[in-house]
Amino acid sequence: MRPRTTTVLANKIIQGDVRAVARLIRRIDDGDPEVIPELRKLYLHAGRSHVIGFTGSPGVGKSTLVDRIVSRFRGDGKTVGIIAVDPTSPFSGGAILGDRIRMQRHFLDAGVFIRSMATRGSFGGLTRSTADAIVVLEAMGKDVVIVETVGVGQDEVDIAHSAHTTVLATVPGMGDDIQAIKAGLMEIGDLFVVNKADREGAAKTIRELRTMLEMSSERYAADGWMPPVLATQAANDEGIDELYQAILEHRRFLESGGGEKLWKRQQTRVYNQLVDLLKEHLLGRALQKIGDRPALAGIADRIVAGETDPYSACQELVERLLGEAKGDSQ
Amino acid sequence: MRPRTTTVLANKIIQGDVRAVARLIRRIDDGDPEVIPELRKLYLHAGRSHVIGFTGSPGVGKSTLVDRIVSRFRGDGKTVGIIAVDPTSPFSGGAILGDRIRMQRHFLDAGVFIRSMATRGSFGGLTRSTADAIVVLEAMGKDVVIVETVGVGQDEVDIAHSAHTTVLATVPGMGDDIQAIKAGLMEIGDLFVVNKADREGAAKTIRELRTMLEMSSERYAADGWMPPVLATQAANDEGIDELYQAILEHRRFLESGGGEKLWKRQQTRVYNQLVDLLKEHLLGRALQKIGDRPALAGIADRIVAGETDPYSACQELVERLLGEAKGDSQ
Repeated sequence: MRPRTTTVLANKIIQGDVRAVARLIRRIDDGDPEVIPELRKLYLHAGRSHVIGFTGSPGVGKSTLVDRIVSRFRGDGKTVGIIAVDPTSPFSGGAILGDRIRMQRHFLDAGVFIRSMATRGSFGGLTRSTADAIVVLEAMGKDVVIVETVGVGQDEVDIAHSAHTTVLATVPGMGDDIQAIKAGLMEIGDLFVVNKADREGAAKTIRELRTMLEMSSERYAADGWMPPVLATQAANDEGIDELYQAILEHRRFLESGGGEKLWKRQQTRVYNQLVDLLKEHLLGRALQKIGDRPALAGIADRIVAGETDPYSACQELVERLLGEAKGDSQ
Repeated sequence: MRPRTTTVLANKIIQGDVRAVARLIRRIDDGDPEVIPELRKLYLHAGRSHVIGFTGSPGVGKSTLVDRIVSRFRGDGKTVGIIAVDPTSPFSGGAILGDRIRMQRHFLDAGVFIRSMATRGSFGGLTRSTADAIVVLEAMGKDVVIVETVGVGQDEVDIAHSAHTTVLATVPGMGDDIQAIKAGLMEIGDLFVVNKADREGAAKTIRELRTMLEMSSERYAADGWMPPVLATQAANDEGIDELYQAILEHRRFLESGGGEKLWKRQQTRVYNQLVDLLKEHLLGRALQKIGDRPALAGIADRIVAGETDPYSACQELVERLLGEAKGDSQ
């Protein structure tokens, strides 16, 4: 790997060149290691955007919510970047025609930049590549960067850690969904939205969410923010103004009191990004050193043949790579 | 980290001691590094079980499907281990009372061992800890190990790579869900189930899935298995015999032709497990070497303060850890 220092794309991106942005994000998505010098340069120009995460199961109307919120930001003259890491999202090309047509007004708006992340590679670089894409959209000068994810998995939790403000969306009567939120995502939500609130059971769902939040109120007592639970009907544009105001309020909350909360949030974001980068780079360099994937496949063969086991093989590799004798830290 | 070689739990587990199994799985879930010698020992006794993954969104009736299939295996005199990595599963304690009561007959059956994995830690060890738990249940002598996951994220794809046979479940009319399957999971399904098939639109959903499978038929032409699409009503025990037979048939398929296909599947499982182990161990040792998480938090602080950026900081750390000068591989 030659250390490349070209930052041609970065220079163009800082000037707002949309094609350069698209090219770099594609290269990030492809896992091209030569993006690093560009990202290093861009990082100096990032850090001024409000990064907002939207997450929730397929079918909760998340894309419509995002669409409505984007319109509010545009109405206030803010530029918006959107990263869709949702396989069901119209942004990422997975959705039905209706959704796609609905979003076209933003596709035609120069103040909105939309890009999807497809990386679901076998080395799990999705969180890392999403964090990199956020840096790119921040550096291109977007006031707001929206990250749309789907589901309740670890990826979504990790990606939520890249946001300043995380909106969790659900719909009435999704009992299972609320259980999932409880189990995995409750801790990361700054705002909760019950969309399609004209459906039966909306009041009950809102009540349940509020109860769950109150039960974990020590968490919020510590940091001073009690996540609101909002009712929306994104398809009819109802409740969206309230959601928009709540998003802005959360940002003001983070900035209040001398910016200590915002600093803490940034620190968490950076810490998680560092861990992801370290994991990926260590594995990449390690594979390179041992002879890349074919060498690892060879070891896998030996394990299947019963000559060794994954735990011993891994320990040997780690010791070889980090240059430590067995048990030297005893 | 002292190299510990006690395999007290492993010896008990091989003899089928349920409490030892529970204890070791809890320690795996907690990320205790001292489980390694135990796992190394257990690995020698693993590899004879049929590992079956069940995945699908919340609400598709996955737990009821698993419940029914477990009954079939028990009826044939097979012992079953279940690992629930689904926050909405009755096994993992997240679900409504009805589900929990429904599953109690298996809780009281000594031939069935059920354990949930909770690890959604910040270092994303879920796939790794699930793979370890599979080894434990295999070594305790279970004929069949079922891994139940939820959703469409990378975790589920990764965990599916730990199975010999993966069953993907959906319900009629979940258009979004099918899109999600298409985007993320299509490639990993060996069997597709449309549950709640008495609902409107079942025939259409089945047709759509079959079309999608046929469109990607080159994949299947190469390996010779065309995933069937089955209609079930798990709550009424309908279609379950057909699903059970299809699962057994897939196992026979893997074993056919001299076992080459099974070997390949095992090799893929092991390869993925190795990558996960490597990632986690490299990061663990790396953190240890640089002064653990507080040291990393200190670097994060410097980044937030604008003194460096994550990319440069990570590169420095990797170079320090792997003892390479900048650009030495030029």
